[in-house]
Amino acid sequence: MPDRLHSDVLRSDDSYGLLPEFVGQVHGALEAGDTEQLLELVEPLHYADIADLIENLDREDRALFVRATKSVFNAEVLPELDDAVREEVIEELGFEDFAACLREVESDDAVYLVGQIEDDEERAEVLGKLPAEMRAVIEQALALPEYCAGRLMQRELVAVPSYWTVGETIDYLRSGARLPDEFYQIFIVDPRHRPVGNVRLSALLRSRRPVRLNQIMDPKTTEITITMDQEEVAFLFRQQDLLSAPVVDASGRLVGRITVDDVVDVIDEEAEDDMFRLAGLSERDLFSAVVDTVKARSTWLVLNLGTAILASLVIGVFESTLQAVVALAVLMPIVASMGGNAGTQTLTIAVRALATKELTPANAMRIVGKETVVGLINGLVFAVLTGAVSYVWFGNIAIGLVIGAAMVINMLAAALAGIAIPLALDRLKVDPAVSSGVFLTTVTDVVGFFAFLGLAAVFIL
Amino acid sequence: MPDRLHSDVLRSDDSYGLLPEFVGQVHGALEAGDTEQLLELVEPLHYADIADLIENLDREDRALFVRATKSVFNAEVLPELDDAVREEVIEELGFEDFAACLREVESDDAVYLVGQIEDDEERAEVLGKLPAEMRAVIEQALALPEYCAGRLMQRELVAVPSYWTVGETIDYLRSGARLPDEFYQIFIVDPRHRPVGNVRLSALLRSRRPVRLNQIMDPKTTEITITMDQEEVAFLFRQQDLLSAPVVDASGRLVGRITVDDVVDVIDEEAEDDMFRLAGLSERDLFSAVVDTVKARSTWLVLNLGTAILASLVIGVFESTLQAVVALAVLMPIVASMGGNAGTQTLTIAVRALATKELTPANAMRIVGKETVVGLINGLVFAVLTGAVSYVWFGNIAIGLVIGAAMVINMLAAALAGIAIPLALDRLKVDPAVSSGVFLTTVTDVVGFFAFLGLAAVFIL
Repeated sequence: MPDRLHSDVLRSDDSYGLLPEFVGQVHGALEAGDTEQLLELVEPLHYADIADLIENLDREDRALFVRATKSVFNAEVLPELDDAVREEVIEELGFEDFAACLREVESDDAVYLVGQIEDDEERAEVLGKLPAEMRAVIEQALALPEYCAGRLMQRELVAVPSYWTVGETIDYLRSGARLPDEFYQIFIVDPRHRPVGNVRLSALLRSRRPVRLNQIMDPKTTEITITMDQEEVAFLFRQQDLLSAPVVDASGRLVGRITVDDVVDVIDEEAEDDMFRLAGLSERDLFSAVVDTVKARSTWLVLNLGTAILASLVIGVFESTLQAVVALAVLMPIVASMGGNAGTQTLTIAVRALATKELTPANAMRIVGKETVVGLINGLVFAVLTGAVSYVWFGNIAIGLVIGAAMVINMLAAALAGIAIPLALDRLKVDPAVSSGVFLTTVTDVVGFFAFLGLAAVFIL
Repeated sequence: MPDRLHSDVLRSDDSYGLLPEFVGQVHGALEAGDTEQLLELVEPLHYADIADLIENLDREDRALFVRATKSVFNAEVLPELDDAVREEVIEELGFEDFAACLREVESDDAVYLVGQIEDDEERAEVLGKLPAEMRAVIEQALALPEYCAGRLMQRELVAVPSYWTVGETIDYLRSGARLPDEFYQIFIVDPRHRPVGNVRLSALLRSRRPVRLNQIMDPKTTEITITMDQEEVAFLFRQQDLLSAPVVDASGRLVGRITVDDVVDVIDEEAEDDMFRLAGLSERDLFSAVVDTVKARSTWLVLNLGTAILASLVIGVFESTLQAVVALAVLMPIVASMGGNAGTQTLTIAVRALATKELTPANAMRIVGKETVVGLINGLVFAVLTGAVSYVWFGNIAIGLVIGAAMVINMLAAALAGIAIPLALDRLKVDPAVSSGVFLTTVTDVVGFFAFLGLAAVFIL
């Protein structure tokens, strides 16, 4: 544990984070090859700060850093690193030292770290360097689907029978039995090792020695099945303000526990994932190599190119109209752009509300109704604004009326698409954050250009 | 505590949430005025599930629900509700019952709930109904800036001196002294009530009675100042996997504690806020009235209209070019749209990385360099694709070359703007999520149209 957080290393008081000057000092020590100074600089840092520090260094410095600190490398740094950076660090550590790190971290972190190795051969090589029992635990967990409760859980936990007294329990905890480093709850199990309740540590500490656990336990509440999706796990923790929860296998036996610190990471990642997917990003790529970044981002851009060409085809239908009234070409992006933005607002609200389970089959129709009314009102407001601007600009009342009408139509289409697309994808069990943006802009571009140029072709020419 | 979570009320096993049929049953009971059946239905629910249930009902049913359950209304439901829904519920409860609720919840929740009342007179009326001591605590907290640690903290905590033994501490906890319902840590304070360390409950339980606390305590680690922004608090909790942390006032005295369950909500909200701001939403408005929703969303749409008109002005400069080659009007949205999308990808990565403190002054230049290269490569790739499509479509090599060149220019501009705008806003202490989207689309629209039509005017005409 660090003993000087508010030191010169980290910004103090109202902001927390590594100071650029500190990163500069580390860089200096690495350049100079001064390992002693380096270790002195790093020593007071929390492992999560060391992870941040490594991310802040450039590729070359990272390798130097790992080489210099290898002998004292804190294994807990690894789970905190960005994926791309971690790969670099592990490569530099080598399989031998990486396996040593795995033995130091908690079982859920070990599962996560091994799970991140994509190459099967490399994975087998690392597993081969681990003790048989640990290897079995990791392999078992990795056989479960990704992003499920079984991947998040720790196997170490405290479970005792309900007929024990507070005194017996405290004596057991003091006995030095094989216990996890930290625990927040004591799970109460029946003779078949199925959870029947839990005792909060504060309740245990408050009760006198002769009290039986079944008098102070919360009766069995929230059980997590080993295959439950991590998003559901996070929802449960948030919903019920849990600190830790028992994980059971298919037969209902207690096999592990999930703690809130892991769930905090999941909550953060799930929100981040939705945010990224809405922007057409498949993964966090801040520290990824250029080639990987280009590859990851191009999928969405290719899709978007398709949408853009489709919109151009619609425009192409009205070539002669554009030729006749060039003002239409000047104004047409306004209608499409406003529809796209209004639709994105609705879409974002809907995607988020589906993720937080606030938008449900029970209230979906009401929300669709509301968004339609909002779209209509917005459409009318911006029809008047845009119509007036266009009339003043080109001195042509017909153009003003046509752009106004097109605006109402496109804003309405945007609202409907913004709410209907994520609802439909969700019902089809597709993640509404991933693909709804493409569908939405397709709708708002096509409807926007078609309505504006189509109305113009009919009423102006 | 609910004793049948996996009942017919909630979806079981792999998904968790209210079943539409259950909401239907509640609606039925409300329609029929069958309070007995209603209470029976609601009784097994967790308070957070009751909040979800209320959100799922329509306005009329909500009022009926509150009226019917008033006498047994669970105060803990209130903090879980969406802001707009909570206002309805409080209005239905009336000040008297609302004040009664406030007395039941924890002090941080009471502060939050009173803080949500925007009308000064109403707030004073509610405060007037509270006991003097509680009123003082709430008023003191509300005098602090919004979104700061002092608003999140609970005043109830366990603090003891370091010379106490484990036995003395346990006896104190068992004595029935005024203690919080639940606590995760014991804070160790010096004679001037300044925190000097903390003891985890698991460590306390594991140690024998004669052991002194200063032998098992973690020396003073993370202190939170009362004015620290909640975003910083959340970062610290996440970074250091904290369960609870001491809050100190300006003179360093321990005045409260923040617990992880409140921080989980903050983490979720901060990520949601960034996601919403990027989409031009000022607040979560799923359950807001139509009028409020229209108002809240129109700010961004008006700004966007400005941007769109600016883009149109750029197009207007090239009216004669468009008149001469109408194919340009057909193709021009492609360049702008691709730039906007590529820029949004970069922007989203940058905004998120600033929020998670992974993008810092120490590595900013390296990331800018990387994004520039990514933008350039993407530009070249899509220049070839778009150029080829345009050439085939219009059979004009010059158009293909011009659109390709414009694509490279705009993708490069998009990358630079996508990373530079949030960095600049962050340095100016403006939230980069709020306003960067407008700036970005302004850049990509203006550069996109100007480059494409400008090059065409020079090389094709």
